[in-house]
Amino acid sequence: MHKEVMENNILLSQLSDAVEARDANLFLSIAENLHHADLADFYEDLDDDEHDFFTASLGAEKFSKVITDLPDTMVEESLDRFSVDDQREILDQVSDDDRVDLLQDVSDESRQKFLALVEPDDMDATRSLLGYKEDTAGGRMTTVYGRIALKMTVKEALDELRGSYSQTESLARVYVTDTDGKLIGRLRFRDLAFNTWDTPISEIYLPCNHTILATADQEEAAKMFSQYDLIILPVVDTSGRLLGIITYDDALEIIEEESAEDMEKMAGFAGETSEQTYLNTSISTHFKRRFPWLLGLAFLAIASGYVMIRFEDVLTSFFMLSLFLPMVVAAGGNTGGQASTMVIRAMAVGELGEGNSMRVAWKELRLGLILGSLLGFCIALFTIFILPLFGGTMPEGVTYLQFGIAVAISLTAQIMTSTLVGSLLPIGARKANIDPAVVAAPAITTIVDVSGMVIYFFVAQILLL
Amino acid sequence: MHKEVMENNILLSQLSDAVEARDANLFLSIAENLHHADLADFYEDLDDDEHDFFTASLGAEKFSKVITDLPDTMVEESLDRFSVDDQREILDQVSDDDRVDLLQDVSDESRQKFLALVEPDDMDATRSLLGYKEDTAGGRMTTVYGRIALKMTVKEALDELRGSYSQTESLARVYVTDTDGKLIGRLRFRDLAFNTWDTPISEIYLPCNHTILATADQEEAAKMFSQYDLIILPVVDTSGRLLGIITYDDALEIIEEESAEDMEKMAGFAGETSEQTYLNTSISTHFKRRFPWLLGLAFLAIASGYVMIRFEDVLTSFFMLSLFLPMVVAAGGNTGGQASTMVIRAMAVGELGEGNSMRVAWKELRLGLILGSLLGFCIALFTIFILPLFGGTMPEGVTYLQFGIAVAISLTAQIMTSTLVGSLLPIGARKANIDPAVVAAPAITTIVDVSGMVIYFFVAQILLL
Repeated sequence: MHKEVMENNILLSQLSDAVEARDANLFLSIAENLHHADLADFYEDLDDDEHDFFTASLGAEKFSKVITDLPDTMVEESLDRFSVDDQREILDQVSDDDRVDLLQDVSDESRQKFLALVEPDDMDATRSLLGYKEDTAGGRMTTVYGRIALKMTVKEALDELRGSYSQTESLARVYVTDTDGKLIGRLRFRDLAFNTWDTPISEIYLPCNHTILATADQEEAAKMFSQYDLIILPVVDTSGRLLGIITYDDALEIIEEESAEDMEKMAGFAGETSEQTYLNTSISTHFKRRFPWLLGLAFLAIASGYVMIRFEDVLTSFFMLSLFLPMVVAAGGNTGGQASTMVIRAMAVGELGEGNSMRVAWKELRLGLILGSLLGFCIALFTIFILPLFGGTMPEGVTYLQFGIAVAISLTAQIMTSTLVGSLLPIGARKANIDPAVVAAPAITTIVDVSGMVIYFFVAQILLL
Repeated sequence: MHKEVMENNILLSQLSDAVEARDANLFLSIAENLHHADLADFYEDLDDDEHDFFTASLGAEKFSKVITDLPDTMVEESLDRFSVDDQREILDQVSDDDRVDLLQDVSDESRQKFLALVEPDDMDATRSLLGYKEDTAGGRMTTVYGRIALKMTVKEALDELRGSYSQTESLARVYVTDTDGKLIGRLRFRDLAFNTWDTPISEIYLPCNHTILATADQEEAAKMFSQYDLIILPVVDTSGRLLGIITYDDALEIIEEESAEDMEKMAGFAGETSEQTYLNTSISTHFKRRFPWLLGLAFLAIASGYVMIRFEDVLTSFFMLSLFLPMVVAAGGNTGGQASTMVIRAMAVGELGEGNSMRVAWKELRLGLILGSLLGFCIALFTIFILPLFGGTMPEGVTYLQFGIAVAISLTAQIMTSTLVGSLLPIGARKANIDPAVVAAPAITTIVDVSGMVIYFFVAQILLL
């Protein structure tokens, strides 16, 4: 293991000991050497009593760094451990966008209470940021950044920026606006450092190639970051006025959130992704996110059972059919799941526009034909050459060859149906404004179970009985 | 739509027209207003003839930006469209880490050929970077960055850095090393700008809290970026010497790659994630990635069929059992899939260490009990109150109440088994050094199909017959 990781782990275990011993001085001296993100992870795993010790020992100022890394659900209860003065201190210490995130994480009554504690200086920015939904570019942006006027010189710009010198986030990029607040361009800090003091800003600024509307979805912002390798993306209103910036670390967070959410939706989870870790999420939360789909899918699966009942005669007169029944059904679920994963991913990265649906369907139909016929061929070989070695009751007049051919035909038809359903259902969902990931694997599997049963029994009835 | 996105789309459609008309001047004048990442996307969708026109019209120098955004599989064929001199130009223009990426994307013979074209100046860096595997921190790093000696003053440092003024990537962070090349700390550019020229660097540098070993996995690097909100992560050797840096955009790329790969593995895809878009990936590539699992799972599914054959007597003497057979089976697949998704995600974010397996199993077992018994209760109600309305052949002496209870018990047992299998199988896979995502949903579904059949028939045999 890397030395640094090891040292970190040692510090964390010492911190555990300090909490155990309720030794505030020791705790503080160790905590000072840990990153606030690690402290937040640590806090998450503590119990109620230990939370009290943690917050009391660390103090409001230091906790203001930790709180921004906590899961949304823990924000309110952690703030409630502090006195009103300490709460004011915490809300003062955090940056504009973090403060708004905190306020969005607490209940409606508490928001009014905490909003009253915000310093008058910060109130305007806080109120205007609170106006944007949490998952929009406006909801993600910060209003702390270097901003200078087009008519300044390098010296004036440096004087202007010196005030925000200590704010780490703000000087990676400096933006140039006109008198109306419209975004004109950007400056690299080095352009200020390597030019003479009397150089007009208008001569050295660079154009801003990428901006985003405050009302745009956060996913759109994340896509721009990854497409264009941005560090910072300016957020503007419809008249091009600069409102704030989104930084690359927000993009990282958005991408992680969205991909976790997609993965969970595809596995049949309801509701929002929990920000807490798996073990810290309560059983009732896990339950609430899993049960609705399970119940719906269970009733959907009764349709498959109904098909079996309808084909009772076919099955009982040739019970050997059961040997491949689960396989034909499962093959549909598996290929349908693969097809939907591919299509959902392609839509997520913005590849599949409205017009491409037919191309996708055509591709999956051909793939289904190839996959199905080859799989059918393999199983037919098994049926014709291996199955007779084990024996089994075949109805009179049906040969292993006929049986093999019937299975192969069913498999091909089932897999073609399933790739088509798996690829078109997410596309249809998007057209109906439903998140495509929601209709993925589990729903598709249950739906193609029915088609598998019908196809298999129908083919057997026609060819074998 | 955002004005800027619209303009981009208009430019791209004009570019299509220029390619159609084979108008090189028009093409070039439009291409100059597009980002290289968009040009790479555009190139990907062209046919062979159009590729020739694209490369010839754009020229080597401009294409050197585009080529770094192409999918790995298109690198070699695009380079081959250029003359040897142009190839030399392209390899000269790209940055160290991009050059190594390109060389890693071509066949072994071509690598020797292209390596011979690398400028003598760049050869050392190229060879040393080629020594690291593509998916390690060393394989991802660049060697272009601001580097100054501890003993310098601010003026000397600025003079040193002035040389790399034009290189955009290099000055976001400046690193300080001692005479042995050991990493001592970092400087923010603004610290140089806002201090007097005679200030010694040793007085103003900041410590480097995070570094990574060159041999560490790229995923570990990405995790540090997202945990600590880094822009740049210095890469060191075991003695702490600074070898290069990884930038935040690499982290974005790694996270996107890994999450796409996990999602695909969980849906039962073999092999590496295709870098090409869904529609540009050939049917044979799609086929190769999907067929192996399908075939394996198909033979696994015959086990379920075998269970059905074994319980022929139970099923034929009480055919109404078929109504809930697919449901009991599918409920296992769905809950098992959910459990495995949760556990795989928790492992991916580094939450579940070796010691937590039992805690996970215990949590899933309890969840399975709650989910199973509640679902069983709902289905039992359906069986007892709704099913009689439709009638159906029940064997003599079996009441709807008994039937409902048997179904509820089977469902509970099946769901508990499935959550346990779904959570423990990925953990077991990791212990056996198999990627946990590989054993996910499709494999688990097929496995718990067997348990569902056995449990259902067994419970029915005991309680009802």
